[in-house]
Formats: sequence, structure tokens, C-alpha cells
Amino acid sequence: MIKRLGAEFIGTFWLVLGGCGSAVLAANFGGAGNPLGIGLLGVSLAFGLTVLTGAFALGHISGGHFNPAVSFGLWAGGRFPAKDLLPYIVAQVLGGILAGFVLLHIASGTGAFSIDPNAAGTFASNGYDLMSPGGYSLTAAFLTEVVMTAMFLVIILGATHKNAPAGFAPIAIGLGLTLIHLISIPVTNTSVNPARSTAVALFAGSAAIGQLWLFWVAPIIGGLLGGAVYRWLGKDD
Amino acid sequence: MIKRLGAEFIGTFWLVLGGCGSAVLAANFGGAGNPLGIGLLGVSLAFGLTVLTGAFALGHISGGHFNPAVSFGLWAGGRFPAKDLLPYIVAQVLGGILAGFVLLHIASGTGAFSIDPNAAGTFASNGYDLMSPGGYSLTAAFLTEVVMTAMFLVIILGATHKNAPAGFAPIAIGLGLTLIHLISIPVTNTSVNPARSTAVALFAGSAAIGQLWLFWVAPIIGGLLGGAVYRWLGKDD
Amino acid sequence: MIKRLGAEFIGTFWLVLGGCGSAVLAANFGGAGNPLGIGLLGVSLAFGLTVLTGAFALGHISGGHFNPAVSFGLWAGGRFPAKDLLPYIVAQVLGGILAGFVLLHIASGTGAFSIDPNAAGTFASNGYDLMSPGGYSLTAAFLTEVVMTAMFLVIILGATHKNAPAGFAPIAIGLGLTLIHLISIPVTNTSVNPARSTAVALFAGSAAIGQLWLFWVAPIIGGLLGGAVYRWLGKDD
Amino acid sequence: MIKRLGAEFIGTFWLVLGGCGSAVLAANFGGAGNPLGIGLLGVSLAFGLTVLTGAFALGHISGGHFNPAVSFGLWAGGRFPAKDLLPYIVAQVLGGILAGFVLLHIASGTGAFSIDPNAAGTFASNGYDLMSPGGYSLTAAFLTEVVMTAMFLVIILGATHKNAPAGFAPIAIGLGLTLIHLISIPVTNTSVNPARSTAVALFAGSAAIGQLWLFWVAPIIGGLLGGAVYRWLGKDD
Repeated sequence: MIKRLGAEFIGTFWLVLGGCGSAVLAANFGGAGNPLGIGLLGVSLAFGLTVLTGAFALGHISGGHFNPAVSFGLWAGGRFPAKDLLPYIVAQVLGGILAGFVLLHIASGTGAFSIDPNAAGTFASNGYDLMSPGGYSLTAAFLTEVVMTAMFLVIILGATHKNAPAGFAPIAIGLGLTLIHLISIPVTNTSVNPARSTAVALFAGSAAIGQLWLFWVAPIIGGLLGGAVYRWLGKDD
Repeated sequence: MIKRLGAEFIGTFWLVLGGCGSAVLAANFGGAGNPLGIGLLGVSLAFGLTVLTGAFALGHISGGHFNPAVSFGLWAGGRFPAKDLLPYIVAQVLGGILAGFVLLHIASGTGAFSIDPNAAGTFASNGYDLMSPGGYSLTAAFLTEVVMTAMFLVIILGATHKNAPAGFAPIAIGLGLTLIHLISIPVTNTSVNPARSTAVALFAGSAAIGQLWLFWVAPIIGGLLGGAVYRWLGKDD
Repeated sequence: MIKRLGAEFIGTFWLVLGGCGSAVLAANFGGAGNPLGIGLLGVSLAFGLTVLTGAFALGHISGGHFNPAVSFGLWAGGRFPAKDLLPYIVAQVLGGILAGFVLLHIASGTGAFSIDPNAAGTFASNGYDLMSPGGYSLTAAFLTEVVMTAMFLVIILGATHKNAPAGFAPIAIGLGLTLIHLISIPVTNTSVNPARSTAVALFAGSAAIGQLWLFWVAPIIGGLLGGAVYRWLGKDD
Repeated sequence: MIKRLGAEFIGTFWLVLGGCGSAVLAANFGGAGNPLGIGLLGVSLAFGLTVLTGAFALGHISGGHFNPAVSFGLWAGGRFPAKDLLPYIVAQVLGGILAGFVLLHIASGTGAFSIDPNAAGTFASNGYDLMSPGGYSLTAAFLTEVVMTAMFLVIILGATHKNAPAGFAPIAIGLGLTLIHLISIPVTNTSVNPARSTAVALFAGSAAIGQLWLFWVAPIIGGLLGGAVYRWLGKDD
């Protein structure tokens, strides 16, 4: 069990450091109007590749969840025991927070860096209303996070189903997370992962922390929903 | 059969929500001159990844068509029974429409959103002439949709051929759809899929609906053509 | 043999239509300063995906060369019989020319399209000196085409070697062509493929035709070089 | 052994020519404000694809390290004999230097090219403080290179572990290098590879050479760290 938790810790560390790190350090490199920065496309790719690489490297140890909503969804899909939920989630949140801490130290190494606690998406935080990158309402944000996480679980449960081609699941799941970011960064800065949201909210200030509840509730509801849908869909008749 | 139709419903829902969603929500994020938006490249990637992820997750249930032109083409290629065409297409169209409905509700969550029924590509709709993103004629649009759908079917039938490497088909097919979008978004906003065109035209206004016929006729002709070509090409002598 | 030639014809058609089509139709969509266009990155991805998809779909029929320099290089690498060189190359060139013809008709469907025979890279043509996108000399262009094609053959021969993981070759080869374009579009608009160069030069005007010799000579030299290098490298001792 | 060293030589040649070549030739094509250039996203993809293609083509010959820090890390992870370290590293450095030499000749083929020895990132060189693309401090640069290389080794050792899906390692490792670049180009121009840093520093001038020590020390520390972590994590209990 300790190695499984170590794999979840390192995998979630990598998800937050890579995904949020690319957003904080490289998305807008050079400033507005400079096309060198990687933009939302690059950040979407980075988030997906953290999971693709983490799942290939660590998936055979822990299953490669790196996300409390995924652990809940796999439980709802009948693939993960309830008794492992708590230790997995603790390991994920702690790994994410370490990544937030490391990222803060790297980012602080240049004079151009600052955190504005009232700016949408500051330090890659998730948010709605005034804290949404595109100014989306709480309702739109909630709906987006539920639907995106539900589809993420459908992809995860489907690609790891015994009838799916073996070995490809990390590609499907990682690029699935890229796709989810391509759609929804403007809405909520994309969470679908309470550990990722928590990891940066702690450093992003009070507004991000005040909205953190949504990024626990909506992804977990979505995860449970997706897990339940696929449990029916993927069952042999 | 109900689970196969469920898989087609969910897969087409995902194709429209992901592909059209990325276009509506993220393509031009920040406005003209802002390099943060994902642009046509990001939208192309998103469309492809909906199929890549959907085919890995759901392909072993329904075959993963998510597209009436693909169902027709697979029938022409001798891989799909005629009697299943109608139920598959109904499930695809309904799944697409649900996605259009959800996308409309998410997009409406920000004050910046509006649908201009006379603007080319509005709400990710397909079109020609004045409704083509690059102002391409009906003839160019028709030719493009026929050729692109025909090549899509060649890829699909070839990559799922018994002599092709097993398991890789969702990658070839998904990235094939990305490629098709990289070429043809400026021409028609890229359909090659009547369900995708219908799903957003219903919300995009009368001009898009008035041109919808082309995005049923041309992709189906292309699908039949590609299916027939590969039926000859891939047959063992 | 007729089906093998048919597969080479269709595959090269797709390579030129997809690669050059994305360059002509979508690279600079919206004009200078508009980040919607797919740029050199999108064109690089498109070229690679034509080969990735073509090789998965048609590779089991013809080997999936789609390129005279590849056919020469595979012969030098001891994997392709000399007697098949000529028919393969004829099929490739004809398939490419049909794609150039179709692309011209699609592109002409908008009033914004024109071919300036003296503009570097016009209609996706390859060139050096004044016809190089970045103004690179004949020497730099020749060196680039030789080295890039040689490495392309090393990738092709290596990824299809019996000790390489089975089934993955289309991914390695397709993304290898993407990589080659990411490096060298500014130098020559990237050929590494005489059929691709010929297919668009015929429509691009006298300057492109006058420089076409280099895009036959240099890629074939590179192909032979890469084939010879890998023949030594990959042989079991 | 000579073929293994030849494979490392060619693979590192390709890594430097492709990764640094895309940065020098194509990243900022057209100048500031021109969205045609491939930007940091394109360069990140290019670096990753050099390793993806090199590992598929040459990995079955030499293991596909192409990087002294990887060789050290594989030794720390118990997968590579100490006696092969020196010859591998010599082959890698020489292959990289040849690539720097070829790249210099290609780049010099246009009048627009110059090397400014005091400009951050000149000729794709790595650096910190004034030589960091984003002006990051020595501490931030050191931390970044250690953590990124450590995670690179976790990915390499994990994806090639006997319990990981066979054949996919070049995808995980190549795209892992892409991810690392998506995060850290602004910090150090991304090394994680002493051979890559050396290959261009020799041509980039005295400031890059004066900072080269960090790009040997930090990646090797990171490689050893990642190797040791995975040695514990991946061991069957």
C-alpha cells in the first residue's frame, strides 16, 4: 500500500507541477500579442501529458488516478474498493500541495511574477463568476465541471475495459484530459480534479479558496455520474 | 442493441460537445490578436480527440461511428448491416442535439456570448458561400466535404482492416479527423458528419438550417464513395 | 500489384492534399496578426498525420511509401526490390498531381486566392534562395533536404525493424515527418519528397518548376544515405 | 558495442538538430507578432518527437538514452552498467556537437541569422539569470533542472518497467520530454540533457559556456534522484 500511495503522491505532484506549471510559467510568455507563449492549447496539452506519462510510468503500481474525483468514479464504476478512497485522496492532495509549493518557488525566481488574489485564474487557480477566466456564471461552471468529469470517467472506465485494446488506456485518458481543457479552460480554468484545485488555491489567495467547494463537489458528482453510466454501459449482457 | 445505441448517443454527444464546444468557447479566447485562444489548430485537435477517446472507450460496444456518414460508409464497405443504419443515425442525431443544448447553456453563462444567425460559422455551424468561414463557394464546399469524407472512410476501413496493426485504429481515425479539420475549417467549418452539422444548426439560426442539406448529402456521398473504394482496395485477391 | 499501386496513388494523393492543403487553405487564415490560422505548427502536424493515417490504412497493402525518396531509401536499406521502383514512383507522382489539381479547384472557390509565381512558397511549393520562405541559400537548402531525408529513412527503417515494437511504425514515421517540418519549413518549405514537390510545382509557376531538380536530387541522395546507414546499423552481428 | 555507440551518436545528433533546430529556425519565424512561427509549443513538440522517433528507430539497438543524465539515471535505477557510462556519454556529446555544427551551417544560409553571445537563449543555448529566457535566478534554474530531470527518469524507468504496457515507452518518454519543455523553456530554455546543452553552448559564445556547468550538474543530480526514487517505487515487494 505504501508504494501505491507513493505513486499517487508522485503522479499528482507531476499533474499539478506540469499542468499548472505550464500555465503559470509559459502560457503567456512574452506578454500579450507575443505568439511565443504556449497559450491555452499548450496548457491543455501539458495537463494531458502529465496523465499520459504518469499513467504509463506509475499506473501499473497504483492504477494512476491522481485525482479524487477519479477515485470516487472508479468506486462508482465498481473498480475500486471504498476502503482505499481516503488514503488515496490524502496522498493525492499532499502530492498536489507539494507541487504548488515547488511551483511557487520556481515562479518566484523571476521579478515578473506576482499573484493577484482577485485576478481570475491567478496562479492557475479555478473559479467562477469574477474568478472565471471568461466570466462564466456559477451555474455554467457547475454544469461544465459535472459534465466534463462524467465524460472523463466514461473515457477512463471504457478505455480500461477488458474489451478495449490493451495498453492504450494512458493515451486515451491523457489526451481525454487535454480535450477537456481545450473545451473548458475559459469557463473554470478547468478543474475536474479537486486535488489540483486545492493545490494551487492554497497559494492563490482567499477568493480562490472561497470558491474551492465547487471544485470538490462538482467533479465528485460528475465522477460518480460517469462511473454509474459506464457501469451500466460496459456490463456484458 | 440498446447499449450499442447508448454508446452511439454518448459518443456523438461527446463529439459535438468537445469539437463544437472548443470552437465556441476557446477558439478565439481573449479576442482578435490574443494568442491565448486555441485557434483552428486547437479546434482540429479537439474534434480528433473526441473520436480518439470515444473510440477507445465506446468502440468495443457500438463500433464507434458517431457519424451517419460513417455508418453509411461502413455499410458500403461491407462492414455494417443495412438494418442497423436507421437506429444508429437516430441515436447519433439525438446525442448531437443534446450536446448542442448543453453547449448553449454553458456558453450563455457569460455575457460575451451571442449567436448572429448571419455570421459564418456562428455557434460552430457549417456553411458555404456567405456562411463559409473563408467565403468558399457551394462547389468548393461540396467537393471538399465529399473528398474529406471519402478519405475519412478509407482511413477508417483501412485502420480497422484485419491486416492493420490491432488496437491502433482509434488513434488513426481520431487523428485523421484532426487532419481533416486542419485542412478544411476555412472552407465549410468542416462537417464530414451530418449529425454534428444538425446538432448546432438547430441553434444557429435559419441561414445554417437552410444550408444543412449539403452537410447531409455531401458527407454521405463521400462516405459511400470511400467505402466502395476501400472495399475494392482492401479485399484479398 | 495494381492494388499496391492504387494504395500508393491514394496515399500520395492524401499526403499532398492534406499537407499542402492545410498550408494553402489554413496556415494563414484570417491574415497576418490573426492567431486563428494554424501556422507552421499546424501544417507540420497535417503533413505528419497524412502519413500516420495513410500508413495505418494502406501500409499493409503497399508498405506505405507515398514518396519516391522513401522507395529509393528502402531499396538502399535492402527492403524493397529495384524492379518495383519505377511503377511505385509513377503511382506516387500521379497521385500527388491529382491532389494538386483538386486543391487548386478547392482553393479557387474563394475570391481571396491567388498564385504569385514569384512568391516564396506559393501554392505550398518548395524552393531556395528567393523562393525559400526564409531566404535560405541553395547550399543550406540542399544540406537540409539531404540530412532531413536521411534521418527520415533512419526512422522508417528503424521503426519497421523486426526488433522494434510491432504496430507503432506509422506513429513514429508520421510524427517523424511532423518533426522534419517543424525544423525545416523556413528553409525550403520542406520537401523530403519529390512527388510532393512536383505535385504543386506544376501549378505554382515557372520559378518553382525551375527549382524542382533540387527536390528530386537532394531527397533521393538523402534517402540512399539514410538507407545505407541503417543497413549497417540495424544488421545483427 | 560500436553499433550501440553509433545509435547513441545518431540519436543525440537528431535530438539536438531537431529540438534546437526548430528553436533556431522556426520558433519565431516571421518576427514578433507573426503567428506563423511555431513558438514554444512547437519547439516543445519537436524536442519530444526527436526522442519518440529516435527511441522507436534506435532504442532496440542502444536503449535510446541520447542524454548523459539519462544514462546516469538508468545506472542509479539499476538498469545500466557503470562501465558503459563513459563511452555512451562520449558518443552522445560528439553526436550533439556534430548537430550544432550542421545547424550552424544551415542557419547561416540566410542573411537574417546571427548569434548574440549576450542574448538569453541565443542559438538555443541554456542559461540562468541574464541568460534565462524569462530572467529566472540560478536557484530557480537549478531547482527546475533537478526536478524536471528526476521526473524524466521516473517516466523512463516506469514506462520501460516490465509491468508497463510493452512497446509504448517511446511515446511516454518522448511526450514526457515535450511536457518538460512546455513547463520550463522560460526558466532555462530547458536542458535536462548535458549533451544538448554542450552541443550548442560551444557555438553560442562565452556566456553560455560559462553557465554550462549547471546543465551538467543539475540534470545529473536529478537523474540520479529520479533513478533512486523509481528503484524503490518499482521494485516488487
